[in-house]
Amino acid sequence: MTTSPLPFHVQHLQKPDGRDLTLYGLQPVQLDSEVPSPSPDPVDARPVMRWHPLRGEWVMYASHRLGRTFLPPPEYNPLAPTSDPAHPTELPRGTYDIAVFDNRFPSLTLGAPVPPAPAHALNTEERAATGKCEVVVFSQNASGRLSDLSDDQMALLLGVWADRTSVLAATGKIRSVLAFENRGVEVGVTLHHPHGQIYAYDHVPPVQATMLAQAQKHRAESGEPWLAAFVKAERDSAVRVIRDEGLGLSVVPPFARYTYETWVLPSRPVGLLSELDDAEKRAFARVLKDALQRLDSLFGVRMPYLMTVHQAPVGDAATADFPLHIEIYPYLRAPGRLKYLAGTEQGAGEFANDKFPEMAAHELREVKVENL
Amino acid sequence: MTTSPLPFHVQHLQKPDGRDLTLYGLQPVQLDSEVPSPSPDPVDARPVMRWHPLRGEWVMYASHRLGRTFLPPPEYNPLAPTSDPAHPTELPRGTYDIAVFDNRFPSLTLGAPVPPAPAHALNTEERAATGKCEVVVFSQNASGRLSDLSDDQMALLLGVWADRTSVLAATGKIRSVLAFENRGVEVGVTLHHPHGQIYAYDHVPPVQATMLAQAQKHRAESGEPWLAAFVKAERDSAVRVIRDEGLGLSVVPPFARYTYETWVLPSRPVGLLSELDDAEKRAFARVLKDALQRLDSLFGVRMPYLMTVHQAPVGDAATADFPLHIEIYPYLRAPGRLKYLAGTEQGAGEFANDKFPEMAAHELREVKVENL
Repeated sequence: MTTSPLPFHVQHLQKPDGRDLTLYGLQPVQLDSEVPSPSPDPVDARPVMRWHPLRGEWVMYASHRLGRTFLPPPEYNPLAPTSDPAHPTELPRGTYDIAVFDNRFPSLTLGAPVPPAPAHALNTEERAATGKCEVVVFSQNASGRLSDLSDDQMALLLGVWADRTSVLAATGKIRSVLAFENRGVEVGVTLHHPHGQIYAYDHVPPVQATMLAQAQKHRAESGEPWLAAFVKAERDSAVRVIRDEGLGLSVVPPFARYTYETWVLPSRPVGLLSELDDAEKRAFARVLKDALQRLDSLFGVRMPYLMTVHQAPVGDAATADFPLHIEIYPYLRAPGRLKYLAGTEQGAGEFANDKFPEMAAHELREVKVENL
Repeated sequence: MTTSPLPFHVQHLQKPDGRDLTLYGLQPVQLDSEVPSPSPDPVDARPVMRWHPLRGEWVMYASHRLGRTFLPPPEYNPLAPTSDPAHPTELPRGTYDIAVFDNRFPSLTLGAPVPPAPAHALNTEERAATGKCEVVVFSQNASGRLSDLSDDQMALLLGVWADRTSVLAATGKIRSVLAFENRGVEVGVTLHHPHGQIYAYDHVPPVQATMLAQAQKHRAESGEPWLAAFVKAERDSAVRVIRDEGLGLSVVPPFARYTYETWVLPSRPVGLLSELDDAEKRAFARVLKDALQRLDSLFGVRMPYLMTVHQAPVGDAATADFPLHIEIYPYLRAPGRLKYLAGTEQGAGEFANDKFPEMAAHELREVKVENL
């Protein structure tokens, strides 16, 4: 296992329409063209949030979003470096590995204005949807997958997610950062260039709030961090471990909600990616890449999935005990059979799963990884 | 508005494999054939639940479910009355409107056995998945829609849901009953005969628990039931009301999570369908039918949707203040564009919506209902 340092290079830029662009590279970043934007018009986002009084959660409204990019013709890829200046994309030509820029159709913005008083009675609380929505382009290779990144690039991505979290926390307006990748036409993905997104909230959303409360309760009752206890028990049991790289491991959790749900965890209980040292990031990156490769090889098709990176709250909401981990929800429960969220999942908040996690983990361990 | 009584007839039967079958009719129920079952084998369901310690919710495991009926060839419809005794379906021939029977592939059963101790360390709490899963066949018309039911049949369905809730509560083992319909190939529906399902839980699931807590908090702070305050404010504001039949109404709630999300509510704050009198049931039924018809006419295609019936906890968990209502989640947010639950919805528990509820309600009010 290498423990060489993981240096990376950063360049902060601004698009012609005012949006932020940050380029990250394993080598020094170099630009070979102007910084482009698909449209010169500044983003006029006025997202608002309304309170759902029965579910106790915020709902984001951004009426400009309906016109957003949707399955564009194959010749135009807004996430590729601009090759024809007459048809600018989101990214310049140059030397860089990963690019992060502000979403042109954000559900949350740092400058969201206070909504005007409506002409009608509103019947719930409404406020500015303060936060930030970013796009993370994983690679300049338009037809690749996240798991096609080199080990170094995958470790760089962990560093990028960590850096974005720190940058967003430093605004003083952000309390929780969620990085995710949604992949597959089956689940509505409109751009096939490998990319993910970041949602940064000015509050701690329900899922993170629940996870934090549950982990704090565990610590109060047992005296040890939830993540440490969980990793130890999974290693002792062994039946649900997919791959163990020492400093990081992957498991099908014993309470998996999706059939082949895969969690990637660090061995050491921390709350933020930025707390991992370079060796831990490298091990975590190898395990993540391995997990994604296994899911693609399981049925011999590129597995549609949602991957979410769960980190501790930041800023004023920062707290110990939140278990850093990545959750991958593969949408195929069998060849050709998608999992849909129906009555019990959406109406009651409880999942029904067709297969025991021990069996799913066994299948994932046995997979022969093929290049798809 | 009619206020004639809503009588209905019931016959309790048992299938050859031991499952319960109940037939409901506006006219006296009459059987013209034996009670069938697609298979003579008794259901050997041993579902278990495991506790998700970070999300604080139960997950159901039923490994036999993976082999369940999936897009059968068009000539065989297990929900139609049996026409050929060599190929029995779930239902007999006869005079009845609505049929309810135990799901052959249940995620929850009243007799779920205590799971045996696993050979490996489990790393979470596991227990029998006690409850009940029922199938509700809305009509003998295989190609119809729920909204093709007559007004009387629609009111009967409300009576059936109410009766099932009472019957399940009377077992002494059920604490919450969720009736729902999931419609559309787009969202994984395997049988096109109009039908819904019922999940009966031995505990109050997270969504119902949150709704109850929020409504109780509102009552404690304001002194009035949440449902009464909500209906009054929606009527005063008027902009989100789709149809108002006096004793019941439909609205796009001001905090809609889906673009054309529609709620059907009674005017009088109650927690259970069984608390509605006949006139209220009839008005509620007309509003529900109207809401479904508008959604089908909105884009000129049968709208894929999830409909969930939210009722108060029952049995020992029974409590006032829970607001009875139906939520309909239409999955199309624009013609040909499905809504998918991606990072923020699944990873954070907060929805992003492209359109303000006031605009969606305006569009639904303007719809010219066509027969699709």
